[in-house]
Amino acid sequence: MQAHLEDYINRNKTMFQEEMSKYLRPLDIPGQLKESMLYSVEAGGKMLRPVLLIASYEVYNRDVNKALSTAIALEMIHTYSLIHDDLPAMDNDDYRRGKLTNHKVFDEATAILAGDALLTYSFEIISSDPHLSDSEKVELIKYLSRASGPKGMVGGQILDMKAENNPVILSELEEIHTLKTGELLKFAIYSGAYLGDATKEQLYYLNDFAYYLGLIFQVQDDILDVTGDPDKLGKPLGSDEDNQKSTYPKILGTNGAYDHKQQYVLKAKEALHKASAADSYLMALTDHFSQRDH
Amino acid sequence: MQAHLEDYINRNKTMFQEEMSKYLRPLDIPGQLKESMLYSVEAGGKMLRPVLLIASYEVYNRDVNKALSTAIALEMIHTYSLIHDDLPAMDNDDYRRGKLTNHKVFDEATAILAGDALLTYSFEIISSDPHLSDSEKVELIKYLSRASGPKGMVGGQILDMKAENNPVILSELEEIHTLKTGELLKFAIYSGAYLGDATKEQLYYLNDFAYYLGLIFQVQDDILDVTGDPDKLGKPLGSDEDNQKSTYPKILGTNGAYDHKQQYVLKAKEALHKASAADSYLMALTDHFSQRDH
Repeated sequence: MQAHLEDYINRNKTMFQEEMSKYLRPLDIPGQLKESMLYSVEAGGKMLRPVLLIASYEVYNRDVNKALSTAIALEMIHTYSLIHDDLPAMDNDDYRRGKLTNHKVFDEATAILAGDALLTYSFEIISSDPHLSDSEKVELIKYLSRASGPKGMVGGQILDMKAENNPVILSELEEIHTLKTGELLKFAIYSGAYLGDATKEQLYYLNDFAYYLGLIFQVQDDILDVTGDPDKLGKPLGSDEDNQKSTYPKILGTNGAYDHKQQYVLKAKEALHKASAADSYLMALTDHFSQRDH
Repeated sequence: MQAHLEDYINRNKTMFQEEMSKYLRPLDIPGQLKESMLYSVEAGGKMLRPVLLIASYEVYNRDVNKALSTAIALEMIHTYSLIHDDLPAMDNDDYRRGKLTNHKVFDEATAILAGDALLTYSFEIISSDPHLSDSEKVELIKYLSRASGPKGMVGGQILDMKAENNPVILSELEEIHTLKTGELLKFAIYSGAYLGDATKEQLYYLNDFAYYLGLIFQVQDDILDVTGDPDKLGKPLGSDEDNQKSTYPKILGTNGAYDHKQQYVLKAKEALHKASAADSYLMALTDHFSQRDH
């Protein structure tokens, strides 16, 4: 299924890239703002979140049109968070995905506003989609705003900043990642299955799956920062070390982190079985994310 | 009606301040983030937008519970925009409403995230309010995201930045203000009347009213920056001059700006008559905003 999976991911990535441009290019907004939003949206991200959302949707349903706007909105929120994370006042990164970061190409003020605009526009996209009923829109917006706001991603970002230069224990590290990246991954899995009309029981187990998938993703991120290939990653190794960040390899050792990840993979797959989703792309994606090299 | 109006404004301001704290204080989120959000929310703003929203609602309906969450969400979005506007990369202001700005009390990273959190939380507040139907929530979120995003406030902010050090003509100045402050004022007036069950025709004329009210507000802002009392304003005069901003007094002269404002006042009141809202607080508020000294 691995070759098959690469195809699936690439086909969806291309589709999402086209769709995101379609949502942004026709906007009648100031040119500098549009260019800045487009720059980061078209920077060629992994599109992990929308791919997961569609894969989750397709477990239960086939007509992807219904899930498209939510996937786009989710990726826009992820992109906004990267733009703000990269700012000098935050992680102060000059490169992202091998390209100059937004504020290096434009300026800090424009980057802040492009992030604000992408975040706000994502709620307009969902609330304006004619494929969705009002009750679906409300359910999606309620969950997405919670997962990306102070109780979710933004809360995780504050904790992550505090953890720099401050050693944390494993449970604190997991809380940071659950908030910072886990909540939006959960939203991807949940919203896809919800729009595909999964049952409550299936949604319950998919929620478990998403939890472990988020941790797998983060452990692998940390492992790659120690053992990865800088060319494939598009950034130098050791940036976590430089930022004195708490990571899985630092707390558990590289082998310990690897073993930990394998435990999460087993639990994630068990949850997929219970959600009647064992025979889906979500299964192959679990291995893919566990073994990715960038 | 003036004394009466002051009472009305103060009563509502107190209520909104209490309500906003109620929405924020119980949140189970990282302490630093909550403190930073609360600092700006409780900084004692004019609460202009929620007061207008409630005044618009009360033209057509009396039970304010239905309009409360929208008013709170609107003020949170306004507060987020002030926090981001004050950042060193933007207007670089050390004081706001006579108090240190958010990033001076906390740090830039926290201020950026507090803004992001308030913006995102505002959509959670509306989408979670049990007083609203799903179709009302969708209508409100659609309008609010449009008015505060790239087509509205954020777009106006980019144009405003570009206009610094670049002389603009009157029509360009009006476009900047229409986007930067006008769209959210329109939302205040529209959403209040919409929730109060105004007719389509009434909504149409209220939209005109809101347009002129936004311009009145901005002309008076510019006039105060030249002729106001720094103690009442809570900031020194001449900051527009320092920032080389295009303003009404600069383009039209102080007397010309004053005449221009009077024209807008007449047009705003005419629209209120047509919206069957002549006998409402909106009428008194128009004079109030035209004559305010801070």
